[in-house]
This record gives sequence, C-alpha cells and structure tokens, in this order.
Amino acid sequence: MLRRIDEGDALGIALKEESKTMNRVSLSGIGVEIPETSISNKELVESFNIWVEQENRRRAAKGLEPLPGSSAEFIEHASGIKARHVHTFEGILDPDRMAPFIPARDDDDLSVTAEFGAKAGRKALEDAGVDPAEVDMVICAGSHLQRLYPAIGIEIQKELGTGGAAFDMSLGCSSAVAGLHIGFHLVRSGAHRRVLVVTPELITAHLNLRDRQTHFIFGDAATALLIEALPQGEEKAGRFEVVDTRSWTQFSNNIRSNFSYLNRAALEDTSMVPSEGNLIKQQGNKVFKEVTVAGHRFIVDFLAEHGHTPETVRRFWLHQANARMNAMILKLSFGGVEVGHDRAPMVLDRLGNTAAAGAIVAMAENHKDMKAGEFGLLCAYGAGYSIGGALMRMM
Amino acid sequence: MLRRIDEGDALGIALKEESKTMNRVSLSGIGVEIPETSISNKELVESFNIWVEQENRRRAAKGLEPLPGSSAEFIEHASGIKARHVHTFEGILDPDRMAPFIPARDDDDLSVTAEFGAKAGRKALEDAGVDPAEVDMVICAGSHLQRLYPAIGIEIQKELGTGGAAFDMSLGCSSAVAGLHIGFHLVRSGAHRRVLVVTPELITAHLNLRDRQTHFIFGDAATALLIEALPQGEEKAGRFEVVDTRSWTQFSNNIRSNFSYLNRAALEDTSMVPSEGNLIKQQGNKVFKEVTVAGHRFIVDFLAEHGHTPETVRRFWLHQANARMNAMILKLSFGGVEVGHDRAPMVLDRLGNTAAAGAIVAMAENHKDMKAGEFGLLCAYGAGYSIGGALMRMM
Repeated sequence: MLRRIDEGDALGIALKEESKTMNRVSLSGIGVEIPETSISNKELVESFNIWVEQENRRRAAKGLEPLPGSSAEFIEHASGIKARHVHTFEGILDPDRMAPFIPARDDDDLSVTAEFGAKAGRKALEDAGVDPAEVDMVICAGSHLQRLYPAIGIEIQKELGTGGAAFDMSLGCSSAVAGLHIGFHLVRSGAHRRVLVVTPELITAHLNLRDRQTHFIFGDAATALLIEALPQGEEKAGRFEVVDTRSWTQFSNNIRSNFSYLNRAALEDTSMVPSEGNLIKQQGNKVFKEVTVAGHRFIVDFLAEHGHTPETVRRFWLHQANARMNAMILKLSFGGVEVGHDRAPMVLDRLGNTAAAGAIVAMAENHKDMKAGEFGLLCAYGAGYSIGGALMRMM
Repeated sequence: MLRRIDEGDALGIALKEESKTMNRVSLSGIGVEIPETSISNKELVESFNIWVEQENRRRAAKGLEPLPGSSAEFIEHASGIKARHVHTFEGILDPDRMAPFIPARDDDDLSVTAEFGAKAGRKALEDAGVDPAEVDMVICAGSHLQRLYPAIGIEIQKELGTGGAAFDMSLGCSSAVAGLHIGFHLVRSGAHRRVLVVTPELITAHLNLRDRQTHFIFGDAATALLIEALPQGEEKAGRFEVVDTRSWTQFSNNIRSNFSYLNRAALEDTSMVPSEGNLIKQQGNKVFKEVTVAGHRFIVDFLAEHGHTPETVRRFWLHQANARMNAMILKLSFGGVEVGHDRAPMVLDRLGNTAAAGAIVAMAENHKDMKAGEFGLLCAYGAGYSIGGALMRMM
C-alpha cells in the first residue's frame, strides 16, 4: 500500500503552518549499537604477521624486499587503539582471507547496513520515548553508504515504521554531525517535526587488512540521534538543546576511497573489478598535521561565535580516530593546557576508529552526569576534509 | 592553506544572527550541462542486435533459447525516448564491450563526475550573476555518487572556489529535488546564505547495455540550482521564489543497484568483484503502475496544501523517465483531462532518462515565458521509491 504524503506527517505540516519563527531543537534520544565481538591488537597482529611471513616467502622467491611485520605496541603508540569491535568476525583473522565474510542477501531481505542502522535507530527512539510514526524524516548519514539506490535511509524508514521521508548523505567521518546539521535546520525551519539521523558504520569490509599503515584503524559501530522541535520556553531535564551546528569542508585526497561504479568503465574487461586500489587509503601523517590545525581552529572559532571559549565548555565529544591527535587539538584549543578524558572522553581505545559513529558514541556514554546549563561540543573531523560541530546545552 | 570557518561565509553568519524569522528563498540560477554526443535508438539497437546475434550463436551451441533482438520502434513506444546524450561515446556501441570507456584518473586530477557537475555549477553561478565565494554550501545531490570519500561535493567546492562547506546526498531520481528541499530549508533557517545543488548524472557507466529491458533508458546530464535568501518584500523579476518543497519516500526494490563496497565481503575470492548483478535493475511495469499512483497523489496533495489545484499551476516540470507515465500522472491529476507539452514539457525524447537531472533540464528550458505571479511545480520520482516536489512562483 502506498502512503499519501500527509500520512504520519500531520504534526510537521501543522507546525510549519502555525509559525514563521524558528523552532528550538532538542536532542531527545541517542542510540548506539556496538557489535559484540572484539578483536585485540594482539589478535590482529598475529594474523597480520602470519600473512606477512607467507607473503615474504613469495617475495623472497621473486627477489623482492620483505615486508615489515607489525606489533600491538606500535598500533597502540601510533593511535591509542587497543581493540575494535567488528560487525562480522568470520574471515577477518584468516591470513588467507583477511576480510570479513558477509554473505550477500536477497533483495527482499533487510540489507546489512539498514539492519545495523535500524538497531541504533530503535534505541534512539526508545531513549526518547518517541513512537516511530511520530518521526517524519530519517537521514542515513554515514561514510560507508551501502549502495546507490534505493537509499538505505528509506529501508531504515520501512524497518522502523517511521513516516514522512528519508534520504542518504555522506561526508566521511563528519557524516553524523553533518546529518545533525541538516536535521537541526530542518526542524528549526519547521520542515520536519522529528528527524532521526542514523549512522551505520560497517567499515571493516572496506579495510585493507594487509596494509600495515591502516589495517588496525577501524572498527564497526552504528549510532542514531533523534532530534525534535522544542516548544518555546520548554526545558527537557536531562536532554540537550542543540544550540547551533556548523559544517566546514576543504578538499583533500589524504583519506580516500576510489571504489566507484565508474571502476568498470576504466577497464578493458568490464566484467570484473579488482578490489586492489579501491579500498581505504590514508596518508596518516598529513591528516594528523592538517586536521589538527583545522580542527582546533574550528573549535575556537565556532565557540567564539557563541560567546564561548573552550574553558566554558564542560565536555568535548571529539572524533575518535587518534588519541594523540585529539590531545593535540585540545591542547591547542586550550592555549597549551593539557585536558584529560573527563573533559574529552575517549572510546577509541576499545572501539577503534568507528568513523562518523565515534564522536556520537563518546557523547552517548558521557553526558548523563552533566548539570543543567552546562555546555558540550560535539566535533567530528575526517575525510573530505570535513569538520562538523554541534554546540549542546544541557537542559 | 586551510581556510578558517569564517572565511567566505561571513554573510551566512550575519544573516543568522540578525533574525529569528525565516528567510524567503529565490531560485536565482539554473545550470545545465548536456554532453555533445547523441546516440539514436537506431544506432543503439544496431549495436544491441549485433551483440544478440553473437550471443545467440553461443547460446545455440549450448542448446539455449535465443535472446530476442530489439527495435527503435519498441523503445520509442515503451518510453517515448528517441535518443540520449552520453558523457563518453567510446565503447558504448562496441558490441564486444557495450560500456563507455572512461579512463581512470589520478587522485590529484579532477574527478570525472566532479568535473561534469562543476560545469553545470559554473553555468548556474553565471546565470545568477553570483560570485563563487558568495556561495557557502554545495550539495552534490545525485543518484550516482562517484565514491564514498572525499565527497564529490567538496571537490566541486574546490573546483568552483565556493566557501563554507559541502556534502553528498542521494535519493535516486529525486536527488536533485531532495537537494533543493534541504537547501531551501538551510537558506530559510539562515544556516547558509547561498546553496548550490549540483547533480552530475553520469549513468551510462552503470547501465547494462546487454539488457533489452533497460539498455535504452538512460542518458547523461548534469544540472545545478543556485538558491539564495531573498530579502523581505523584494521581488526578482524573471526568477522564481521557492514557495515550498516536499519529500516523500516509501521503500521499494523495483529500481535497484546492488553495487556496493560490501560486494567483495560476500565472495570467496575478495580480490575481484563481478559486475554482473551489480548494475541497474528495474521492474519497469511495477514502477510504472506504482509510481503513477503515488506521483499523482503527491501532486494533488502537495498543491492542495498550498491552496492550489493542478489547474492553477501554469507548468509542470516532471521527472523525465517515461512519456506515457507522465501523461498518465497528469491525466489522473487533472481529473481525466489530457495535458499537453506546453503545460508539462518533455525532454526525455531527445535526452533519455537523465535520472535526477531530467526535471531540472525540463525547467531550465521551459520557464522564461512565464509571467509574474504564475506558478510551476517541479516534481521528480523514482528509485526508493522517492518523490520530491517544489512549488515555484515566478516573480
């Protein structure tokens, strides 16, 4: 049965008609879905080094230089990561495969990333105490959209039973905060009454587990944010008012995937597309240096626009890619003062870099102790380059 | 050099600070980029039938039923399409290839779809007489996003020299109108002063030119829409005010691509991914029937919300997929009355289905004769299912 456009959407229309002034916006629910299986650095390195030994025997036979092995200590020193949770364990530690095995599903079955995102979405709805039918927009905002069409957001809409509409958007590791930026303004302007920003980050399937520089970086996680219009004068105790959001981008190839529907068109034989060269690539050192500069400037400038300094913000939920990078961004933002994990919580040590999900997980796990009137800054940065910020006030 | 967040974005911030009331929005520029090379039904069918003959010799040797050939008349009868323009001619009519040959580019070179989109974007800026630096958001909204990251929108931002930020979004053939929906509300709420919605549709690279049901459907085109805040009381002669936008989605697999970064994870050998099964699939008859119902309801309901009936709208720029489907949608909307191409212009006859670009091309080519105070409806529908509408008033 095809819904009419006014079904499940009556509140949104009513709100828009009654007012030409902007709505206030509350973050009323957060959902996080972390897969159960965790892989430690030690386990990952054991598998990696077995592959390196095998590969080096092949390389020796060809007269090539051997590849270096890795170590758990190198990974932790370089990134702060000790472990990561993975959506699908099977295949990842197999030295002959080094990729998760995620069976293809029939078109009529729920897609893998829609399922992953819907789990987080359901938790956000429960957290907010909101009925799915009261939501009139799902934004699937992630760095790893599963396909071109139909949009994964629409499949999540169907799975959750939300009304209105949905779409997919993508902006690397800033996707979730960019989705919040868009959702915030859709609610502010009255276009939609309740927006669910869903971020399914199933990254391990796109990772080159044979690349020493990047194989350890990513883990899988899904998150969801439920935002809604907040009547003038109303305060929702224990929830955040979204004060403002910002988005900044400047092109860089230093984090890049060339996986593309165009790949086949570049080949002599268009029937098979090689995976090699079409997985995640990262120039880690350049990213560290450039994003540290851009990130701390963004934080200082965005807060200043709202009469804040880093000192007046109780908590920073930063992108969870690299512990040293975050420490540096904070130190630069705070004028040289070191800031601890109570001020800027870390989840990457046990989850790895979960792309756009990371900062949301950090916020989900570290906000219930905040007092009314305290401010928090959600700030994600990454591929693009892109940076997204959202200033929150605990009500 | 890394820009700070306030660079090239001062107008947007100023506007947001000064007002809590919604901005009016004008569509100030439209850009269309149509590739030069056109392929007629006759040319396409000649190539297709040569392939069918070759294939049937192979099939006969295996004792399989022969495949049916096609004809220019069948294509025109089924769709109304007489020809399509293609981004890259080489390879498409080669019976041994049947795919465009689009060489891979170095990461440091401008990407194929960013280049295509930027051409349309530049035309929209010229049409509006707006300097690129005055634009503070680029939305790359298309059914065929080239890659996961960095966002194509950011590369277009760099190529055009716009400020602020960018992101990618996707919603099948409704992508451009959905991008307009988002951009409209970003400008309404004062988040951004000027938004450029860029839609590069390079679809022929994802088409199965060996599939009789779909090989003729698509052509390539890129479009761009420049929208901006309109001061209260101001009228811009010859431009549209965007009165309102709407988005509607309901899940369907009837138009689907399974091309995905997850494909390799489902394989025994993850090093090569087959193209077969991962190109555009469409259940044409189901789409025709279901989208005709949903589309005409959307039109009637959306117009009714604004006190309009189809009769009070001067022009309909509909999604350009199928001439008979559009005629049926209009007939149902107008209560059984047939509506001609002056009321609802057709460009699919010479361009094919250019996905999200089609309705924008129809609008670009058919609005300069409209009188002040006349209304037009932009309405796109397709994969998702998704429908997007924008009600325009000529100023």
